[in-house]
Amino acid sequence: MPFHSHKLPNGLQLIGETSPSARSVALGFFVRTGSRDETPEVSGVSHFLEHMMFKGTPRRTALDVNLDFDRIGASYNAYTSEENTVYYAAVLPEYLPKAVDILADILRPSLRQDDFDTEKKVILEEIKMYEDQPASVASENARRIYYATHPLGNSVLGTSASVGALSRDQMHGYFSRRYAPTNIIVSAAGNFDWNAFVRLATEACSQWEAGEAGRGNRTEWSGAGGLHVLTRDSVQQEHVMFMAGGPPADSPLRYAADTLALAIGDDSGSRLYWALVDPGLAESADCSYYENDGSGCTYASYSCEPEEAEGNLAIVRQVLADVQKSSITADELHQSKSKIASRVVRGSERPMGRMQAIASAWSYTGEYRDVDTELKNFDAVTLEDIREHLDRYPIDRSTVIAFGPVKQLGGVDGKPV
Amino acid sequence: MPFHSHKLPNGLQLIGETSPSARSVALGFFVRTGSRDETPEVSGVSHFLEHMMFKGTPRRTALDVNLDFDRIGASYNAYTSEENTVYYAAVLPEYLPKAVDILADILRPSLRQDDFDTEKKVILEEIKMYEDQPASVASENARRIYYATHPLGNSVLGTSASVGALSRDQMHGYFSRRYAPTNIIVSAAGNFDWNAFVRLATEACSQWEAGEAGRGNRTEWSGAGGLHVLTRDSVQQEHVMFMAGGPPADSPLRYAADTLALAIGDDSGSRLYWALVDPGLAESADCSYYENDGSGCTYASYSCEPEEAEGNLAIVRQVLADVQKSSITADELHQSKSKIASRVVRGSERPMGRMQAIASAWSYTGEYRDVDTELKNFDAVTLEDIREHLDRYPIDRSTVIAFGPVKQLGGVDGKPV
Repeated sequence: MPFHSHKLPNGLQLIGETSPSARSVALGFFVRTGSRDETPEVSGVSHFLEHMMFKGTPRRTALDVNLDFDRIGASYNAYTSEENTVYYAAVLPEYLPKAVDILADILRPSLRQDDFDTEKKVILEEIKMYEDQPASVASENARRIYYATHPLGNSVLGTSASVGALSRDQMHGYFSRRYAPTNIIVSAAGNFDWNAFVRLATEACSQWEAGEAGRGNRTEWSGAGGLHVLTRDSVQQEHVMFMAGGPPADSPLRYAADTLALAIGDDSGSRLYWALVDPGLAESADCSYYENDGSGCTYASYSCEPEEAEGNLAIVRQVLADVQKSSITADELHQSKSKIASRVVRGSERPMGRMQAIASAWSYTGEYRDVDTELKNFDAVTLEDIREHLDRYPIDRSTVIAFGPVKQLGGVDGKPV
Repeated sequence: MPFHSHKLPNGLQLIGETSPSARSVALGFFVRTGSRDETPEVSGVSHFLEHMMFKGTPRRTALDVNLDFDRIGASYNAYTSEENTVYYAAVLPEYLPKAVDILADILRPSLRQDDFDTEKKVILEEIKMYEDQPASVASENARRIYYATHPLGNSVLGTSASVGALSRDQMHGYFSRRYAPTNIIVSAAGNFDWNAFVRLATEACSQWEAGEAGRGNRTEWSGAGGLHVLTRDSVQQEHVMFMAGGPPADSPLRYAADTLALAIGDDSGSRLYWALVDPGLAESADCSYYENDGSGCTYASYSCEPEEAEGNLAIVRQVLADVQKSSITADELHQSKSKIASRVVRGSERPMGRMQAIASAWSYTGEYRDVDTELKNFDAVTLEDIREHLDRYPIDRSTVIAFGPVKQLGGVDGKPV
């Protein structure tokens, strides 16, 4: 499928993959900013700002934004992660001009004081709502403990205290620094005409003031190890997480990291599946590789009845130690690669999937990766690559965080949380 | 896209939609059975049985099932609802023969006693896990109260007591009655050859013994009304649900029902969005139409801070009363239809979406609906259709169920749950 890229004079990067057989088109504005780019005083500002972008511009009230999206039947939304804030819409091809117009407009928001005050309540409710969800509380605490002083441990939502104290001017200052055109990629995929798209985006965004937005600490991280037990009586299941280092998103080892994680903890047929889920010792078990800018993480986890938590801890430690010592088998490697090929192909079948994939690849590497190249890269992973990955990022040196009703685990007393 | 259908002599129905430009193929076995087909003594058996289907057959151990799926990189899973149990896999085209072989094989399981005993623990854990999720507890109780004596109120998971007491022989009896070929549709969509597929399915399933599986109570239902307050102190947010009647899945009014629900409670630009979410009064608000065999339901809901629950109750009642009295506007109708057109098109872009859509339509109506017909049916909805739907299924006569920390709501005292 043809790929195109074009940079506006102010630094805004446009990329696109056209697919004439598609029946829709997906469009996204990828802003390279998130909780890792926040200071403690403004913790949560990236996510709060994401909400504010829908509250109006000099040309549109919040009502207009909503109505304009709705009139074209757009499926639109936004999300904030530790390092990206993404605004996107999928529409029928005839509505792309309108979608570019709306998304570009909301990326230059008014940030009005009264909207800020109202939306703050929504965010504070969202923070409370996450407090009701054990899995969210577990992973939030796990990241905080594992990453310690590294900014990838910053909370995306922030706390009731930090969000409560945030001012509109602090948010505006953050916006001005982080939403510079050089820090944004505009990505499109599906059924559209590239030249028309460049004209639309140029018209909508060329007046955005140039600027530079960097990123602070991008060092690799692999945690300090140890076992941390967090106790909350009202939760029924115990959640236990193992976090270890992994290659950054621009490393060639990312293919080995993904393949290995799948062999260890895919939701079917993996080491952890057979060790914990199949015999009924845990409700769920997982291992995934997360790629980040400058660092990466291999994250294994299980959730189970409190009385199984201790036994399962020993089992998972043994699984990770076995893999570290003897790696995986040729058969496991082959299975993982078959699964990944199927996933990559299926993920490519919708414009939304391609729009996200090309933006993510470009954001981390400045390169275009088509589906066939991605398939080839995964297919090329060897047992030697897996060994190299394990030697560089030992999976048995995890930092372990437990959250749930258990009061003592692995000889460590729980702290209330 | 070409559609095909074929019925085997034993009653098994094959349907397929071929799309040569797709890069994968999706395959599903739709069994028309679920919690509504259970007696109280075997509550949860459909869902438990779904788990057991992966535990082995005369030809395959559970390990073989898992390994065989994994070797072809299949994305496979199953789910159980009130009225359907569905087993599915998406694969690269070259693996379709193997996928048919595996799925057909597991649909005739061994149901071994020791596997049954082990898996029962998994199910009991799953039941406990859902008890930790306020939104799940809320909707489970809402269905139970709203449907009262109607079997659509039966719990999919069952209770710890019913699942705990279930025997292997009871499960086998249920399986023999409900998994008759006449009660199963095999659906395929994507890149595959229809004639080859019929040969594969015939070879795999033609020896299945014929049988008939009916369904009991299929009457329409619209609830007894009233406000029911369920109190649990440990939950932070209040969840409030409004359930009212709606057209059954084979009714022409389904298009009006879907369009109306979107106008009332889509997650952007709807009446409830503007009344509750935009001003920060609720974390979320929704209205959806659920179609079932013989009945349907329009389900509105919100979740919010406990102190906002009372005010929001009055607001939602007013929104529903306004819609009942004055319907929606032409502009709202147009917006809903634009959104639905976009959703239908995007949902059709993956073989998995089409495989599910054609099976669902066939299951309820015995007919094939292609994407363009579905689009045309939604586009044809008029304000008169909306009015007819409202007159037939008054949306202001909801049964209201609240779950959360609130101890009194709308003058009704909460009962602990």
